[in-house]
Amino acid sequence: MTEAQAKLIAAAEQVLGAKGVITDPREIAPWVSDWRGRVHGASPAILAPASTDEVAAIVRLAAEHRVPLVPQGGNTGMAAGATPAADGSGIVLSLRRMNRIRAISADSRLAVAEAGVVLETLHRAADDIGMRFPLTLGARGSCTIGGLASTNAGGTQVLKFGTMRALVAGVEAVLPDGSVHSGLTGLKKDNRGYSLDQLLIGAEGTLGVVAAVALRLVPAVAGRAVAWAGVESPMRALDLLRFLEARTGSVEGFELVPEDSLQLVLKHVPGTRAPLSSTRPWHVLIEATTAQPGTDVAAELEGLLGAALDQGIIADAVLAASEVQAEAFWKIRDSISEAERVEGQTLAHDISVAVGDMPRFLVEAAAAVEQRFPGVIASGFGHLGDGNIHFHVRAASHAAPDWYEREGAAITRFVDDLVTAAGGSISAEHGIGQLKLAEFERLAPPGRLHALRAIKQALDPLGIMNPGKLVP
Amino acid sequence: MTEAQAKLIAAAEQVLGAKGVITDPREIAPWVSDWRGRVHGASPAILAPASTDEVAAIVRLAAEHRVPLVPQGGNTGMAAGATPAADGSGIVLSLRRMNRIRAISADSRLAVAEAGVVLETLHRAADDIGMRFPLTLGARGSCTIGGLASTNAGGTQVLKFGTMRALVAGVEAVLPDGSVHSGLTGLKKDNRGYSLDQLLIGAEGTLGVVAAVALRLVPAVAGRAVAWAGVESPMRALDLLRFLEARTGSVEGFELVPEDSLQLVLKHVPGTRAPLSSTRPWHVLIEATTAQPGTDVAAELEGLLGAALDQGIIADAVLAASEVQAEAFWKIRDSISEAERVEGQTLAHDISVAVGDMPRFLVEAAAAVEQRFPGVIASGFGHLGDGNIHFHVRAASHAAPDWYEREGAAITRFVDDLVTAAGGSISAEHGIGQLKLAEFERLAPPGRLHALRAIKQALDPLGIMNPGKLVP
Repeated sequence: MTEAQAKLIAAAEQVLGAKGVITDPREIAPWVSDWRGRVHGASPAILAPASTDEVAAIVRLAAEHRVPLVPQGGNTGMAAGATPAADGSGIVLSLRRMNRIRAISADSRLAVAEAGVVLETLHRAADDIGMRFPLTLGARGSCTIGGLASTNAGGTQVLKFGTMRALVAGVEAVLPDGSVHSGLTGLKKDNRGYSLDQLLIGAEGTLGVVAAVALRLVPAVAGRAVAWAGVESPMRALDLLRFLEARTGSVEGFELVPEDSLQLVLKHVPGTRAPLSSTRPWHVLIEATTAQPGTDVAAELEGLLGAALDQGIIADAVLAASEVQAEAFWKIRDSISEAERVEGQTLAHDISVAVGDMPRFLVEAAAAVEQRFPGVIASGFGHLGDGNIHFHVRAASHAAPDWYEREGAAITRFVDDLVTAAGGSISAEHGIGQLKLAEFERLAPPGRLHALRAIKQALDPLGIMNPGKLVP
Repeated sequence: MTEAQAKLIAAAEQVLGAKGVITDPREIAPWVSDWRGRVHGASPAILAPASTDEVAAIVRLAAEHRVPLVPQGGNTGMAAGATPAADGSGIVLSLRRMNRIRAISADSRLAVAEAGVVLETLHRAADDIGMRFPLTLGARGSCTIGGLASTNAGGTQVLKFGTMRALVAGVEAVLPDGSVHSGLTGLKKDNRGYSLDQLLIGAEGTLGVVAAVALRLVPAVAGRAVAWAGVESPMRALDLLRFLEARTGSVEGFELVPEDSLQLVLKHVPGTRAPLSSTRPWHVLIEATTAQPGTDVAAELEGLLGAALDQGIIADAVLAASEVQAEAFWKIRDSISEAERVEGQTLAHDISVAVGDMPRFLVEAAAAVEQRFPGVIASGFGHLGDGNIHFHVRAASHAAPDWYEREGAAITRFVDDLVTAAGGSISAEHGIGQLKLAEFERLAPPGRLHALRAIKQALDPLGIMNPGKLVP
């Protein structure tokens, strides 16, 4: 611990009390590695303010002592954006004690949640008033609202409702100079200068600490239908999406699953079974919902899938006959990463291209990777409707245990080059954090890097807000 | 003309050719005053590039010669944000020659329009492919896509579709260093650092020149219903909105009209007549639409208004029986400002508070203004569903001809203080430009002003991008 850190921690104890300063290494340990266990950092303490004023006080102290802060929510990020540096130069600022839902209203269709509110908690609170917060993802039991906003999180319902950027109605944040940006008034229209709210969304804590967020709610789901369809190719999957979108506004989930991924799930995840009796090279999981009671969304989806079958767009389809079966379909989709991990070493890429380009990109990129790195298996699954695929490259069965370390970087560079050449993004929804920093620097246009660095330097001239993340 | 300006203009002629450089004062004249004729500027020339590369070349020349540029589209702004300085120190950069729709597709639901495309032209192009660009406003025949993005324009359909911020899928812009930010790939998900797109939206040309915009399209309207309802108070109007929103997703316009404004329209605008036979103190214009063929949105709205009548929420209502009648209802709404101008001097305020707070704010603020400035008439009309009201203060009939100049600033300060105390915005949709700069500086929190100035200085250190606008 440096002298400056010791001074900051001592001063923080005055502000936060004993409950707000954790120094026991055993209590710190779970929070200084990323959840995938790939990046290990160090922090001499965890500071845990319980109010926005306390956050502001800590930020001012950090500025005074020139000690970097690493804001952290549920520590479920995919790019190690909330993991402190290995040299222990930073201090983790945990928002988990800020876990109040300050307000929630069906009339205004808004909730104001502090940064440390767990997503699932917000889901339940919205349910309780007959409303819904539509963003969801696998980590919903751990991830927090502040982290979701700071990483502009996506998930499985983006098709209809957008990412966090579309769902945030306002942000309360402590800026690096210790001033509080108060954007929680819930104004639907406000054109007073640059949108600091939008700048803070996706900034990964590098421009300030998100302390609370106003979130848009939508009407509760009155009817839901889940279906599984078999298709001959990703192109046909996209055809199905266009077919449905032209005829209904109810599709909110549209997830692509290759046969290969399905087989891995069936092999490694107990209790799963194939939705279709026939074997098809590609599959689509479709979720349709309606907020209007009396609308039979299942009948509508069944009718549309029947028409798609007649037109030869899909090869086979089945509608989940019950909530249990619907959950079983989703379990297959949500278990792909887990099944792959059991099978062997996997290299994950969270990429996007324009929606209409993804089917062809996916097929061609997988072929190119498999040709360039013989023995590997490349495939993609996920949010086809958003042009966002989790493009995974699995080691050959005979690969060495250090395949990931030895080959990973070269394969990732190859994939990222393909994505960049296609006008796509090397980080669709997981962010840059630490893990993608070098690739981002390698591939971003110089003008863009210059602009990001200028903004960072302008708002955080002392470099105390999550340095070494997001901005190369 | 300064020596630096002469050098810039000469160099611009090399880049743009004769068509791209206007120096005839008669051709310049219409573009150096704002459209309301309140602010008069000067510019020794108008530079009119025809491509993004040409814009970039001009920006680099402007940087080299340290001559400020004033980006301008249709010159229909409400805050004189595109009007050059009176001292002639800047040069107008017109985007009107960049008027191509580069791409438009029903499949991808995207259009890519250059900055100079007129909104109405885009509306027609979307119609032609069976789609719709849903943002619209009074100036649609003149205003341009670049200006709409740069001012985060709103309008009458924000309730359902949001402001430009929600409709822009990507921005191509020339940054102050002459580099081109290319954000037109139409990615639905992209988390590579701070969102420059979102920073440029609403930046009023102070951080760069928006050259082209990717825009979201929505399905064409398959059915539309327009109704007029009489209510006893703004509170009851909001009750009606809540009542409708809880029962249907089809309401996309909800405009409040006071009886007083209606009477002015009937008095001054030929061919208008009152929609209701009874007299009510407040009125609401409601527009409901559906994109689903076969949905009878008129019957749905009629049924809901009948129920609202039964419950005593509204006092009277009439459904437009034809498109002609629907347009007649809208004409009343759209003629209020014009009728007020004929009646006498009017001071306009484009304000917002939280939607649920607006009814009470509106009534109390009008009473406070009329008490503090005896003789004036204060009232508000417009986008109640967005919490955005055009709060107008009219001079007493016996007011002196210079009332606006003598009293205007004091009344506006009084109104802005009320709005700020209510947590609202002194610029809901019209922007800051030049006209609201002093009030913005007076009322914004110091931390926010500091952040805006730091961002401006970071990205435009030479101060060549529309100086004297937006950032106090």
